[in-house]
Amino acid sequence: MHILVTGAAGMIGRKFVERVARQGRLGDQAVAKMTLTDIVTPTAPKAGFSVEARADDIAAPGVLEALVKDRPQLIVHLAAIVSGEAESDFEKGYRVNLDGTRFLLEAVRKLGGGYKPRLVFASSIAVFGAPFAEIIPDEFHLTPLTSYGTQKVIGEMLLADYTRRGFLDGVGLRFPTICVRPGAPNKAASGFFSNIIREPLAGKEVVLPVPESVRHTHASPRAAVSFIMHAATMDTGLIGPRRSLSMPGVCVTVGEQIASLGRIAGEKAVKLIRREPDPVITRIVAGWPERFDPVRATELGFKAEASFDEIVRAHVDDELGGKVA
Amino acid sequence: MHILVTGAAGMIGRKFVERVARQGRLGDQAVAKMTLTDIVTPTAPKAGFSVEARADDIAAPGVLEALVKDRPQLIVHLAAIVSGEAESDFEKGYRVNLDGTRFLLEAVRKLGGGYKPRLVFASSIAVFGAPFAEIIPDEFHLTPLTSYGTQKVIGEMLLADYTRRGFLDGVGLRFPTICVRPGAPNKAASGFFSNIIREPLAGKEVVLPVPESVRHTHASPRAAVSFIMHAATMDTGLIGPRRSLSMPGVCVTVGEQIASLGRIAGEKAVKLIRREPDPVITRIVAGWPERFDPVRATELGFKAEASFDEIVRAHVDDELGGKVA
Repeated sequence: MHILVTGAAGMIGRKFVERVARQGRLGDQAVAKMTLTDIVTPTAPKAGFSVEARADDIAAPGVLEALVKDRPQLIVHLAAIVSGEAESDFEKGYRVNLDGTRFLLEAVRKLGGGYKPRLVFASSIAVFGAPFAEIIPDEFHLTPLTSYGTQKVIGEMLLADYTRRGFLDGVGLRFPTICVRPGAPNKAASGFFSNIIREPLAGKEVVLPVPESVRHTHASPRAAVSFIMHAATMDTGLIGPRRSLSMPGVCVTVGEQIASLGRIAGEKAVKLIRREPDPVITRIVAGWPERFDPVRATELGFKAEASFDEIVRAHVDDELGGKVA
Repeated sequence: MHILVTGAAGMIGRKFVERVARQGRLGDQAVAKMTLTDIVTPTAPKAGFSVEARADDIAAPGVLEALVKDRPQLIVHLAAIVSGEAESDFEKGYRVNLDGTRFLLEAVRKLGGGYKPRLVFASSIAVFGAPFAEIIPDEFHLTPLTSYGTQKVIGEMLLADYTRRGFLDGVGLRFPTICVRPGAPNKAASGFFSNIIREPLAGKEVVLPVPESVRHTHASPRAAVSFIMHAATMDTGLIGPRRSLSMPGVCVTVGEQIASLGRIAGEKAVKLIRREPDPVITRIVAGWPERFDPVRATELGFKAEASFDEIVRAHVDDELGGKVA
C-alpha cells in the first residue's frame, strides 16, 4: 500500500513514520511506499520500502492534487498551524488549517474513478470550549474558543460530509494533550505537563507554574501513534456518521504526575521540581477541559495507557533507552 | 443607517425588507439606505429611503468586497443554496454556502479601520442530526447529516470566531420550519406542513402525506422577520461566545395543526385535506427533530407565536387580507 503523510516533520508524524518503517506493514498490508510532506522536508527513515520526503505548502494551488495523484490508499493528515500561531496569525491559521484541509478533501474528491482512500485527520480537544462538563461526554457540544479549535471543527465537519457522500473514508482523532513530549522545553502554556517529567528524568531542574491540584488528561506519543495506526486499519463501518472521536487518555492531577515520577525515578528526581506559581499560566490552564469519557473510541478499540506510570515508562523506553539519569 | 441584505429575493428576505421599508427605521435608528442583493434582482419596495437592488453572485471574486465597501452598519446574510439543492449539487452548495459566507466575513475583516458591523446570519436546525433528544436543548451537539447542515455549522463556527476576534458582531439564527409559507405548493419534503393550511384557506384541496401524529416545530414568516429585527437591534453583549441560537417556535402535531385550521376556517376547510400516506415522505420526516427548548433565545428576548392558531391567523392577516375563502 501507498501512504501519504502531511505534517510528517512534526513529532507525531515522525514517530508514526518511524513505526511504519520499522514494521514494514500496516495491519495486514505490506507498505510499498510512503510519501512524506511538511513545510520543511521531513526526515526519511530507513525502510524496506520506497520513501519520498518533500517540502510543500499544502495551501498553495495544485500542491495537494500532485500529492494525491498516485492515489495513496491511506492519507494521514497531521499538517496544521498550532493553536498559539493560529491565534497570533489569523490568516495563516485559516490558510493552512481550513484551506489546506479542504484542498486535500477536494483533491481526493476530484480524482474520482472509484478512488476512496482512508483519511485519518488529526483533530483536537480544542473543538470544545468552556464552560465544560466535569466529565466531557462524546456528545458534548462543539464550542471552540480559539481560531485553531474553530478550524478543527470545520475540518471535522468537512471530513464527515465528504465521508457521507462517499468521496473518502474519514476518521477524525481528537487528541488529548500529548505527554511526555520529547525535546527541549517549549513555551506553550501546556509545556509544563511534559517538562516536569522529562527534565527531572534527564537530571535537570524544572519549574512547575501551577498548583498540584490541576487535573488534566494525557496520552503518550506512543499512544498517539497507536491511535493513528488503529484509525488507519479499523473497520470504519462501525463508526457511523459521527466520524470524529475523542481519544482516551489518562486523567491525573499534577500531584499524581509527580508521584509517578517519584515511583519511577526516585525522590531525587522529584526534588528537581521547583514550585514557582505563575498566575497567567494557572488562569489559562483553568480554562482547559480536565476529563473525558471517550465511550465511542474505547468501544471502537482505541487504547491509551492505563496509568500515568505507564506514560512515564513509555518516555523512558522510547526516548532515554530505558535509562533514568 | 445603511443595511445590506443578501438573499433579498427569498421569501424571508423580501418580508424583512418590506417591514423595514414600512417602518422606515430599525430599533431607534432611521434607515438611510438598503442594498438588496440576490442571484436574481430583488424587488425594491416603496420606501422613504434609498434602495439599491442588484443581482450578484456572492461567491464570485470581488463581489462581496464591492457590496460592503460602503460599510453598511447591518448585514443580514440570508443567501443560501437550500437543503435539497446543496445535496444534489455538491459544488454549488459549498461554493455559495461556505465560500459565499466566508467571503462576506473576509470582506468585512479586510475593510478594517474600526469597521465592525452587526451581522445576522441565517442558520438552520439542519445543524442537528439524528438521533435526537426528545427535546433538543441549546447545548445539543452539532452533527449535521446533510451538506447544507454541514455548511451551516461551518458558517456558525466562522461567525463565532470572527466575532470573538472583534472583526464583526455576529448573531446566528437557527430557524425552525417556517409555516405557513406563502405561494404555490412546493415539492420540498416539508412542504405539506404549510400546504395543509394554505391551500384549504384558499378553498383548495390538498394532500396530507403523513400521519396526524407527526410532531414538528414551526414559526410564521412574521416571526422569522421579527427574529431578524431583534437580532439586528439587541444588546449582543448578553450573548456570550456562542453566537448562534436555536429560535423558538410552536411545537404541534399535524393533528393539532388541522384543529387550528378548523377553529379558524371551519370544518369545510378541514374537509379539503385528503389523506394519502406517502411512505417516502413519512420516512424522511421521521428523521427530523420534533421539539426544541430554546432557553437562551427566549431569555435574550426572541419571541415566536404562542400557539398554532396564531400562526394560522398571521397567514390570514398577512397573505389573505384577513379573509378566509
